[in-house]
Amino acid sequence: MTDTVTLQAWVLNKAKAAKKASHILATLSTEEKNAALLSMANSLWQHRKSILQANLEDIEQAQKNQLPQARIDRLLLDEKRLQQMIEGLHQIVELADPVGEILESFKRPNGLQIEQVRVPFGAIAMIYESRPNVTVDAAGLALKTGNAIVLRGGKEALRSNDQLVYALQKGLESTAIPLEAIQFIDRTERETVDFLIQAKGIIDLVIPRGGAGLIQHVIQKSIVPVIETGVGNCHLYIDKAADLDKATAITINAKTQRPSVCNAIETLLVHEQLVETWLPQVLTTLTKYGVEIRGCHKTQSVAKEIPLIPATEEDYRAEFLDLTLAVKVVSNVDEAIQHINQYGTQHSEAIITEDEKTAQKFLAQVDAAAVYHNASTRFTDGFEFGFGAEIGISTQKLHARGPMGLKELTSHKYVIRGTGQIRT
Amino acid sequence: MTDTVTLQAWVLNKAKAAKKASHILATLSTEEKNAALLSMANSLWQHRKSILQANLEDIEQAQKNQLPQARIDRLLLDEKRLQQMIEGLHQIVELADPVGEILESFKRPNGLQIEQVRVPFGAIAMIYESRPNVTVDAAGLALKTGNAIVLRGGKEALRSNDQLVYALQKGLESTAIPLEAIQFIDRTERETVDFLIQAKGIIDLVIPRGGAGLIQHVIQKSIVPVIETGVGNCHLYIDKAADLDKATAITINAKTQRPSVCNAIETLLVHEQLVETWLPQVLTTLTKYGVEIRGCHKTQSVAKEIPLIPATEEDYRAEFLDLTLAVKVVSNVDEAIQHINQYGTQHSEAIITEDEKTAQKFLAQVDAAAVYHNASTRFTDGFEFGFGAEIGISTQKLHARGPMGLKELTSHKYVIRGTGQIRT
Repeated sequence: MTDTVTLQAWVLNKAKAAKKASHILATLSTEEKNAALLSMANSLWQHRKSILQANLEDIEQAQKNQLPQARIDRLLLDEKRLQQMIEGLHQIVELADPVGEILESFKRPNGLQIEQVRVPFGAIAMIYESRPNVTVDAAGLALKTGNAIVLRGGKEALRSNDQLVYALQKGLESTAIPLEAIQFIDRTERETVDFLIQAKGIIDLVIPRGGAGLIQHVIQKSIVPVIETGVGNCHLYIDKAADLDKATAITINAKTQRPSVCNAIETLLVHEQLVETWLPQVLTTLTKYGVEIRGCHKTQSVAKEIPLIPATEEDYRAEFLDLTLAVKVVSNVDEAIQHINQYGTQHSEAIITEDEKTAQKFLAQVDAAAVYHNASTRFTDGFEFGFGAEIGISTQKLHARGPMGLKELTSHKYVIRGTGQIRT
Repeated sequence: MTDTVTLQAWVLNKAKAAKKASHILATLSTEEKNAALLSMANSLWQHRKSILQANLEDIEQAQKNQLPQARIDRLLLDEKRLQQMIEGLHQIVELADPVGEILESFKRPNGLQIEQVRVPFGAIAMIYESRPNVTVDAAGLALKTGNAIVLRGGKEALRSNDQLVYALQKGLESTAIPLEAIQFIDRTERETVDFLIQAKGIIDLVIPRGGAGLIQHVIQKSIVPVIETGVGNCHLYIDKAADLDKATAITINAKTQRPSVCNAIETLLVHEQLVETWLPQVLTTLTKYGVEIRGCHKTQSVAKEIPLIPATEEDYRAEFLDLTLAVKVVSNVDEAIQHINQYGTQHSEAIITEDEKTAQKFLAQVDAAAVYHNASTRFTDGFEFGFGAEIGISTQKLHARGPMGLKELTSHKYVIRGTGQIRT
């Protein structure tokens, strides 16, 4: 199958099979879907040997290809991680099923009874990179919400994903959910992504999860509706009226607790009244945590003892995802808001202040999925929000914004019941 | 300005001005927005002479260009139509403002207070064709919901739209809404559309309204999120258990009451038990209404006295928007559902039956924005649904589906209030 046309037909057949299965899935009861999810969980454990063996081969290949250690870590599976994935499926079973929820119900003067009912999307394509746990999470969340899923993971995890999907499909045997509800694209040509995101009328929704390159590619090329996820150039603004203990604790937490994730901060904005007092202290502490500072002119002038790199325009735009922090002094909250709305990616933004009015202004005027007053940006997360699950964090404004749980994987339809009404 | 680069910069400057204005708009009270809408309405009436004069020039040009009469009708303005547009703005003033509504509010065990708050999108681009009333409707709906709008209408209505926008902007003078909140692209090069729909980060949402060609172009080229509107290949299925009086009345209504609109039916599906009895009668009646029938084999066999064209695969896919109807005999509701899910555009679909179980199956399994039991598909409309306004009918599943009112022009953000929480 080296021919592009053949490859496209092969991908589209998988998408069509998923779509067909979605029509059955949409009519299943919560009990039927939960029984299938539990069977999938059991099957994962039964197939642990072949899954971990396949993962070992992926890891060996990754080491041979000299992948960075961080990526190899993301790829690695062991019994504990597999148990976490199984536990994740059990948690999804426990969550309320949003399908069938009546969102609105009203009667018109002509007697028409109109209901807005929550329904599945249909077939969802998930485009992701090296983490094999996405395979299980996405399948579990999609099936619980009555959606079929087409999985296109990264090439490093091909063998692991293949075995995971095999186990999940085996788990579906003798359940109400057809095996075809989970489709896996076990090919790694870039075109397979393009075929999926151009399959309008078959695929109902595309969710890309991964680095900025992958997400931009999908947005540029997709004609199927996309939910953009994940890129986070997040800011923390320390106001002149900040409680400085909170400011220090939250700065350290938001930058260093897990710098590789999207809700960690990349730029610290500091009110000019704190330049002589608080700023040098926090920079010293950050440096002890191994953080590299890229400072504006004013930051440079007060931090002479700290090894510091002058900040560039590019630094303000960067999602470092690492122990690197841009620092900029601003003259007031308005300048902080303006900077965030200009450079941010509308993910998570926080203000530290004891002044309620200043906080209110920041919360209202900053344009982002999550805006915080006196808390770390690190809380933007489906589990931290109490959703019990997360399929990604949307940074667009259409349909979903912020952490996406089960509800965000559903659409709705209007059901209208009449007694012979015609329009006059 | 013949240079493409210059034209792009000019379009983007308009988009940026709208975006900037949207930041002010987002913070205005309902009273401030309503006052501005009323002032816009007054200004339209004050400027009626120049508006109608400009429209006359558009009409003369359209006649010179030998545009079809239907399109000239859509383009035409007179005092009555202008008053309807003004009345439309008054109606928007009366509607509840969705901005600021708290959709969810919950406290986490760590003390974080999380609110999901409805907010404007920001800057919306409206891409439409010849109807100048869209200019006023879209501006009114966008401003009421705190959004700035960039209007790109069809070239036939250029002079009319130009004067309408001038009057609307004049109306904004000495109100809280900046003039820049309404931007008009008074150029007709196709590229101006492309510049807008590629302006990611500036334009937050694109809504195309018009024919299938325009909508497909926008979907293919846009990297800004799009709400797809309007194309309706709608079906009516007459079940064997139908009340035949209702069946006849609804068939005639759904096809002939206004055939040029998206919620009119294009294909009639008839249960095979009705082939000898009801079908010939209704076809005779339809023919009297001037409807051209394109029938399947079985339809042809029973309708020998009726002038009838054999239906092709293409007819089943067509949105005729005219007095043309495809007719197909099916053996049961399952075949009807399958036909609709294969050929439909997920707009509006109806079943006529007195059998509750068959109706329930149809309503559950047909994949469309609006599914009807014993009523005409012609009711899919923001006003008929009681929304008091409509910016279009979404045929996609993301964010909005079916008639879109004010709520569909908003997004949301999470506002999180803490007391110094960090993530551990």
